[in-house]
Amino acid sequence: MFQQAELDPVMSKEEFETREAQLRVALLQRQYALLEKPDRAVLLVVAGIDGAGKGSTVNQLNEWMDPRNIHTLAFGPPSPDEAQRPAMWRYWNALPPKGQTGIVFGSWYAPLMKEASRKKPDRDRIEAIAAEIVRFEAMLAADGVQIVKLWYHLSQKAQAARIEAQLADPLTAWRVSKEDLKVQQRFARLRRAGQTIIELTHTEHSTWTVIPGANANLRMVSTAATLLEALSRRLPKVVAPVESTEQREALRKPSIRVHEVLTGNDHEEPADYDRKLSLWQARLAQVVRSKSFAGRSLVLVFEGLDAAGKGGAIRRVTHALDARQFSIVPVSAPNDVEKAHPYLWRFWKNLPAHGRVTIFDRSWYGRVLVERVEKLIAPAVWRRAYGEINDFEEQLQDSGAIVLKFWLAISKDEQLKRFQERAKTPFKRFKLTPDDWRNREKWDDYAVAADAMLAHTDTAHAPWHVIATDNKRRARLDILEAVVTTLEAGLKRSKR
Amino acid sequence: MFQQAELDPVMSKEEFETREAQLRVALLQRQYALLEKPDRAVLLVVAGIDGAGKGSTVNQLNEWMDPRNIHTLAFGPPSPDEAQRPAMWRYWNALPPKGQTGIVFGSWYAPLMKEASRKKPDRDRIEAIAAEIVRFEAMLAADGVQIVKLWYHLSQKAQAARIEAQLADPLTAWRVSKEDLKVQQRFARLRRAGQTIIELTHTEHSTWTVIPGANANLRMVSTAATLLEALSRRLPKVVAPVESTEQREALRKPSIRVHEVLTGNDHEEPADYDRKLSLWQARLAQVVRSKSFAGRSLVLVFEGLDAAGKGGAIRRVTHALDARQFSIVPVSAPNDVEKAHPYLWRFWKNLPAHGRVTIFDRSWYGRVLVERVEKLIAPAVWRRAYGEINDFEEQLQDSGAIVLKFWLAISKDEQLKRFQERAKTPFKRFKLTPDDWRNREKWDDYAVAADAMLAHTDTAHAPWHVIATDNKRRARLDILEAVVTTLEAGLKRSKR
Repeated sequence: MFQQAELDPVMSKEEFETREAQLRVALLQRQYALLEKPDRAVLLVVAGIDGAGKGSTVNQLNEWMDPRNIHTLAFGPPSPDEAQRPAMWRYWNALPPKGQTGIVFGSWYAPLMKEASRKKPDRDRIEAIAAEIVRFEAMLAADGVQIVKLWYHLSQKAQAARIEAQLADPLTAWRVSKEDLKVQQRFARLRRAGQTIIELTHTEHSTWTVIPGANANLRMVSTAATLLEALSRRLPKVVAPVESTEQREALRKPSIRVHEVLTGNDHEEPADYDRKLSLWQARLAQVVRSKSFAGRSLVLVFEGLDAAGKGGAIRRVTHALDARQFSIVPVSAPNDVEKAHPYLWRFWKNLPAHGRVTIFDRSWYGRVLVERVEKLIAPAVWRRAYGEINDFEEQLQDSGAIVLKFWLAISKDEQLKRFQERAKTPFKRFKLTPDDWRNREKWDDYAVAADAMLAHTDTAHAPWHVIATDNKRRARLDILEAVVTTLEAGLKRSKR
Repeated sequence: MFQQAELDPVMSKEEFETREAQLRVALLQRQYALLEKPDRAVLLVVAGIDGAGKGSTVNQLNEWMDPRNIHTLAFGPPSPDEAQRPAMWRYWNALPPKGQTGIVFGSWYAPLMKEASRKKPDRDRIEAIAAEIVRFEAMLAADGVQIVKLWYHLSQKAQAARIEAQLADPLTAWRVSKEDLKVQQRFARLRRAGQTIIELTHTEHSTWTVIPGANANLRMVSTAATLLEALSRRLPKVVAPVESTEQREALRKPSIRVHEVLTGNDHEEPADYDRKLSLWQARLAQVVRSKSFAGRSLVLVFEGLDAAGKGGAIRRVTHALDARQFSIVPVSAPNDVEKAHPYLWRFWKNLPAHGRVTIFDRSWYGRVLVERVEKLIAPAVWRRAYGEINDFEEQLQDSGAIVLKFWLAISKDEQLKRFQERAKTPFKRFKLTPDDWRNREKWDDYAVAADAMLAHTDTAHAPWHVIATDNKRRARLDILEAVVTTLEAGLKRSKR
């Protein structure tokens, strides 16, 4: 795949000037059209052999286009903040909104590049990282992010000549790092790594193009033409993302169903409630203040139909926490900014740092519940979401977070009773909206959606806890018990 | 002011239970009413003598109210990211949107507390910090943030007893830091500091309340009652913020006026344009890559009427920069999220880290230009904005940023010519909107607003450069020259 680029082809000045004039106008036009009708965000991933002109090409692209809607995103070693979240966190945070273009240096390919260019690369590890990247890019592509990947390449001879030339000029010598000098010696290994990377991560929805880097004219024209072609393309319909074997294996046997839980749901008060509650809260207070939690984090997800008691249950949990240690993220319809990003973006932005607790009051499961039931998205979109969510939660767990998900199951009769009670109580009236009554009419649709959700996303790394809530007090004890025992067990096991 | 609290008054259990029931309902009602009609964000600033129960009160408040819309904001020593921006940056970033409540620990009062509790406090410094705080709070208050400040206090004897008790209980001993133990020895100094702080920063729009801290019942009821009273209050009409003497002095003699600049505005081409442009760009490239810039940052503001050439000028500047080093922030009407925050919030969010350049294509000056001319805000609001903007830019400069502001002055004839040209050129048509023609009809209003802006915000720390742009090439050279010479001079002087 590099033969062509390693011939170090050139483009004459005349040819370049003709092409430049056409390309600049066409690129600007496309860019403005995209701003007017923002149907996608664009990510241009810049990678390749060092010395192949990545930096100067991106600078030139910023000039050819209107730089006001281009974000250059450069990533070095992770900051302390970043090190406490999944590896992909910083890329999610930096995603441009629809209408805009991000140019990514030092991207999510860096770890793959590192492994693949070792003296003795670990093929299993390489394939695992590549599979993760393919899933990540598929998810973005499916959510309106167009990914264009460029691999800059040149012959070993040309590389040596370029580095020489840069070193000779005081204005460019600063660009040549010690790494670059070593890179020359490692040409063969980087070349092999590039081959591996392109083979494993070139997909229909996220293609690699090899750009010949030795000649500035040809390099720039090839870059611009590739980008222009991509911007002019219709967005592909993306199929379900590849699920990893682990993920498929993680799916346990068909989950417990909501109505089964409700069968055993009675109104009997738990004995000794106050004492039990205090005991669980005291254990929770101790475990989140323990040293072993300082290097972990806790993510709690609460889902359930209206009036199932999410708020009350959350308060019983936070009672044991210091207010400085937790955040509650109430989730409702996305705002303008959130709508301009892939749907998981707003949840990524809210992940806890180490030693902290984030409680999602409703969550990313809205995708397969309300958005499915209300037909806000196509069936293909919510079907794909199961795999995306499993992937997201797996990354969370891999980064040291402990994830617990609660489905608060309420019976239809009990819901009606609570609605009526809310309507009577002055300061609870706020909690009852016409939406609640409308949702109630779709009870059966929600039951189907919830069962499917439990079946597809009840994984070993982030299991669902289905809680019968017709008796609120029993529900609260059940939840606290699950949080405490999972947390205690999780902290005993070392971080993966 | 502390006599009452130092009597360590108590509240009986019975009295507490009666008040609790009333207060909880009333607080929840207020909180929900605020969510339904979000007319303000609330900041509860928590300060006081250590051991006076700040932490546990906030935890309890999170239980009494619905914690889903309360954000506990705790600030320790600044992170590397924070240290590269003005001191207030992290508070701006953390501001809750309207409808929500933030509880602030370790707030902007920390430096004042530190200085005021020294053995020999520096009164000048104290007054300077306090004046800055008063301006900051006035700005927030004027923009819909209600600030409620609580000082927790108790007698020295009670303090000692509380710390003893906490140390004795393993569940609370972790809360007692070495600092707390020292605090006992420093009671008198902290008390004096509290007095100073309250005297200097208790204002009509941002009041302090002293909460007696020795008795948990009374402490909680006083806290809840104070918050409830504040939430029930109408927001005060806030007058112009206090301007610092330095700021008033910084205002130079009446600025040059736009029409005077235009008088000398001819269309003659500058001699030797290409060579001069390259020379300035080379100098800019060198200075931003110099070691001395690594500890500073650069903020460029471009304002001017439509078609004055902002985009072209910006591109000539960015040509000299590495794409990884700069960001361009195009500013138009605020989105939903931005509207729910004070108006400077979205600019604070975009301040550069050290070694970086941020270019604002339109800016916070929209407040005194388009928002004034289009009557989007009351005259009192844009009048107040001059002082707020000067304050903001002074903080920027104090933090090591170099700030340059450009007003691109175009004549009415030249604008018409450029509009007609845009209408003809296919890929420029996008740049011409019906708004542009409408704005042109308000030419005289914009001239008045621009002159007032120049007169009020042309400060020594962030001067305006009024650039005649009827000849675009001359304008670009003028801009580059100003950037380069200011930057070179600024880096020679040491950081304040």
